[in-house]
Amino acid sequence: MKIYQTATAPNPRRVRMFLAEKGLLDNVEFIEVDIAKGENLTPEFVAMNPMKKVPVAVLDDGTSLAETMAICRYVEEAHPDTPKLLGESPKQKALIEQWLRWVDFYLMVPVGMCFQHTSGYFKDRMNCFPDYGQDCFSAAEKFLAFLNEHLKDKTYIMGDSFSAADINAFATVGFARVVKLRIGADQVHLQAWFDRINQRASAKV
Amino acid sequence: MKIYQTATAPNPRRVRMFLAEKGLLDNVEFIEVDIAKGENLTPEFVAMNPMKKVPVAVLDDGTSLAETMAICRYVEEAHPDTPKLLGESPKQKALIEQWLRWVDFYLMVPVGMCFQHTSGYFKDRMNCFPDYGQDCFSAAEKFLAFLNEHLKDKTYIMGDSFSAADINAFATVGFARVVKLRIGADQVHLQAWFDRINQRASAKV
Ligand SMILES: N[C@@H](CCC(=O)N[C@@H](CS)C(=O)NCC(=O)O)C(=O)O
Ligand SMILES: N[C@@H](CCC(=O)N[C@@H](CS)C(=O)NCC(=O)O)C(=O)O
Repeated sequence: MKIYQTATAPNPRRVRMFLAEKGLLDNVEFIEVDIAKGENLTPEFVAMNPMKKVPVAVLDDGTSLAETMAICRYVEEAHPDTPKLLGESPKQKALIEQWLRWVDFYLMVPVGMCFQHTSGYFKDRMNCFPDYGQDCFSAAEKFLAFLNEHLKDKTYIMGDSFSAADINAFATVGFARVVKLRIGADQVHLQAWFDRINQRASAKV
Repeated sequence: MKIYQTATAPNPRRVRMFLAEKGLLDNVEFIEVDIAKGENLTPEFVAMNPMKKVPVAVLDDGTSLAETMAICRYVEEAHPDTPKLLGESPKQKALIEQWLRWVDFYLMVPVGMCFQHTSGYFKDRMNCFPDYGQDCFSAAEKFLAFLNEHLKDKTYIMGDSFSAADINAFATVGFARVVKLRIGADQVHLQAWFDRINQRASAKV
């Protein structure tokens, strides 16, 4: 499998952490795409992912597969002998999916929109609405407070077991620094959890 | 299983269609929540879903489960004897997930944001940025053009097999009428696909 990615971008980081937790990082050839320069907007790239985003995987049969969680799903299903990160029972799978979506819709998207609409980083390819971006900051801030509360009696988001929900939340909290959103000094449960994930080998990839 | 929902809202409709395709609609007790009146903002509701959205399922053991696709995932996994709507092989599962996310991020969210930011329907609980909402309209419009092109030689989004991607795209195209986004007169492939899904019994639920 090949993965087109941008090493510094948060979505590819989620995929790399996922692969690292499964011990599969060395099975993948990574190809760097400079999104700041718009290398994701070329006809060749758009043929792989019409949504023009990284990461994109290209499977061994040549199929291209976009979307962070779709790539993770493929890896989970194709390697049933590796640690399960998307759950085992129907209930666990569903609760992890709930959390993955909460992290995407109520943290990752707001942080990303805050960044894009207030910094103008991609102003060559989108319209920016800074007031909307600022409002997204508040939404992301609220989610961090919620997550801190959720983690007060838990080791991981799902309780005792580490899952993809931890990876996605961790990578997003890390990314949130670009908009100067940080874990509050009083958010001790969130900070303890962040430090815990940060010590895993997968946090370095 | 119980499902808290709003019969006229698009996300609950996706779950009902999913259940109907599996022949499981009668296994579920539906409880109506009036989101216009803010019944989803009460402490009782927030205890079930801190994100304050419908749909929310309550499983037989009392666990509450939010997020449309998390509820669908639970149903798929808990009833392996029913038609698979989220795929069978790793590759199929991943490609369906890619499409589910494309429909969510690049169609459902833009249509929803266009609706919320331009209509002020939820102005009691959010800040509205009408210019941003208008920009979301253009994004959704572009996705419809892409979907029309994709469907030019296909019966369903995944090709020959019906999947949850068809349900989600169909429900969202239906919902798009609230912002006056309609299938273009020249988008014949999209229209033919829409009419095809519209004839299924599940489209009526
Ligand atoms: N929904 C996509 C989002 C991917 C995404 O937004 N990727 C960013 C980098 S983290 C990107 O490619 N941005 C380039 C651009 O918007 O032009 C996923 O989950 O993979
Ligand atoms: N990400 C959620 C979105 C759910 C959602 O936005 N539901 C809407 C109705 S379709 C809602 O509850 N709106 C009420 C509100 O925003 O107060 C999902 O996929 O279930």
